[in-house]
Amino acid sequence: MGEFDLIARYFTRPVRKAALGVGDDCALIAPAPGMQLAVSSDMLVEGRHFFADVDPEALGHKALAVNLSDLAACGAKPLAFTLALSLPRVDEAWLAGFSRGLLALADAHGCELVGGDTTQGPLNICITVFGEVPTGQALLRCGARPGDDIYVSGTLGDARLALESLLGHIALPAEVLARARQRLERPTPRVALGLALRGVASSAMDVSDGLLGDLSHILKASGVGARIDTSLTTDLIAEKTYSTSASGVFDAKLLHQCTLAGGDDYELAFTAPPARRDAVAAASQASGTPVTRIGTVLAEPGLQLVDAQGQVVENRYASFDHFG
Amino acid sequence: MGEFDLIARYFTRPVRKAALGVGDDCALIAPAPGMQLAVSSDMLVEGRHFFADVDPEALGHKALAVNLSDLAACGAKPLAFTLALSLPRVDEAWLAGFSRGLLALADAHGCELVGGDTTQGPLNICITVFGEVPTGQALLRCGARPGDDIYVSGTLGDARLALESLLGHIALPAEVLARARQRLERPTPRVALGLALRGVASSAMDVSDGLLGDLSHILKASGVGARIDTSLTTDLIAEKTYSTSASGVFDAKLLHQCTLAGGDDYELAFTAPPARRDAVAAASQASGTPVTRIGTVLAEPGLQLVDAQGQVVENRYASFDHFG
Repeated sequence: MGEFDLIARYFTRPVRKAALGVGDDCALIAPAPGMQLAVSSDMLVEGRHFFADVDPEALGHKALAVNLSDLAACGAKPLAFTLALSLPRVDEAWLAGFSRGLLALADAHGCELVGGDTTQGPLNICITVFGEVPTGQALLRCGARPGDDIYVSGTLGDARLALESLLGHIALPAEVLARARQRLERPTPRVALGLALRGVASSAMDVSDGLLGDLSHILKASGVGARIDTSLTTDLIAEKTYSTSASGVFDAKLLHQCTLAGGDDYELAFTAPPARRDAVAAASQASGTPVTRIGTVLAEPGLQLVDAQGQVVENRYASFDHFG
Repeated sequence: MGEFDLIARYFTRPVRKAALGVGDDCALIAPAPGMQLAVSSDMLVEGRHFFADVDPEALGHKALAVNLSDLAACGAKPLAFTLALSLPRVDEAWLAGFSRGLLALADAHGCELVGGDTTQGPLNICITVFGEVPTGQALLRCGARPGDDIYVSGTLGDARLALESLLGHIALPAEVLARARQRLERPTPRVALGLALRGVASSAMDVSDGLLGDLSHILKASGVGARIDTSLTTDLIAEKTYSTSASGVFDAKLLHQCTLAGGDDYELAFTAPPARRDAVAAASQASGTPVTRIGTVLAEPGLQLVDAQGQVVENRYASFDHFG
């Protein structure tokens, strides 16, 4: 199968919202009047972002999910995406699974595949996603103010727990690994929550490289510091019961590492003034996404970790760096 | 150097046109009222699109040039781009050269780097470019009509000539190779011509995989055929004098191969009604880009090649396929 047949068979579908989709030199899209276009690119590389033997359907899902998560963090509504794909060879079973996972998530979010590129080379998936946001209403990293509450959506750390097990660093019962692995391989982009937080959150970003590292980007961009209650964040791992059971194979240190610096969570971290707690609760409810208040923005720079008694605990949790 | 330092040092600059650039979850851009956004993605892979030892400055230039060429083919004005980069290691000399070549071309076209991604992995460069075009005025592949003239801009075949020499298939004198190699490694996107052809050309695309193969996309999209005069296309190679000299190392067959199916030309192929010949000449003049009329659109499907006497010649020239 040649390049053009491959595109036609797996990646060409009629577009509804875009003016022009796959098959010309460019795709044509137009945000509605009064809207800005939010744009984000993510590149996924074998061995760095996924294992060579990962289920291609899950990989298709994840490749788009990590991009939709960036739109969610800006409060943007998904519109369209381009896919550039480097493949070692044409493997039709792989392509069928990959495109199925990719396009199922795209359909669920009304996000159209409008163009891209395919070539031969080491496996590499680069998606650029486009969303709409009313001009001036995008959620940014720079709006956190001293006194704001700090929130995180959903659960934290289960993706890292699965990764540690798949890397052979820890042993997990099969059913625990199976659940945690879903979080690693099929993350849920928090698009509905991001949209509901427009006009409510003072800042937001998605948690992709670990909570503390990602939060530090908000703090730096906003010129503020923060205090995080680690007794609340450790509660956010879904497999916590297992971790503290008699047969638990991982300790408190690993629990902190997973929840504070795990990576691959694709939850939203955001801030909002205490006066907006009802609005945050309403956004959580409207989007069907649990959110947990985990700390407070401080005027002094730096990230303080405290325990349930408010005692400062040491921050030894490094964030993920793609060149680390 | 970590991922964030690398982005800060080589790829972060203030944006002027975009609402928000590098450093948040998304960039924010907005086409002016009445404008559509033209979007194109290209992925360049070592060994497939460039040699491992290519000058990084030339590679930075080419990576953006091939994307700007897609905008040119649509008649879109460059606005912004994202860069996703997978690097085997952090090589500061390489990064400095690459970003210099990339950003020099970006500046020349007023095209802002607004975001992207960096990761560790086999060298891979994925750029997504955004341009503006007045709604409904984009040059498409589907508008060629029987009787239209067929044109191509600039020169054809020199990039392929250089490639054949670099692959060791032919020998070229150093000065010939040096000139041809400029065409291979530093193509000139025909942005000004594309803009000038809005409202004049009936169809257009850029010649990246070889004239005949790319032209066949226009013919298929438009439901027409074409006759091309190969005595005119062979004239379009800049190094033709050399090829026909006494010391010439390549023959008529190679000359046809380079000009008709060479690849990497990044010229524009386009069609226009004979009544618009003056307008085409004016667009050529206004953009400072030579164009040559090389054939005619026919009602019957198929691509006929003829010689200077109008005799049909066999078409044995295959286009480049990234999985061929």
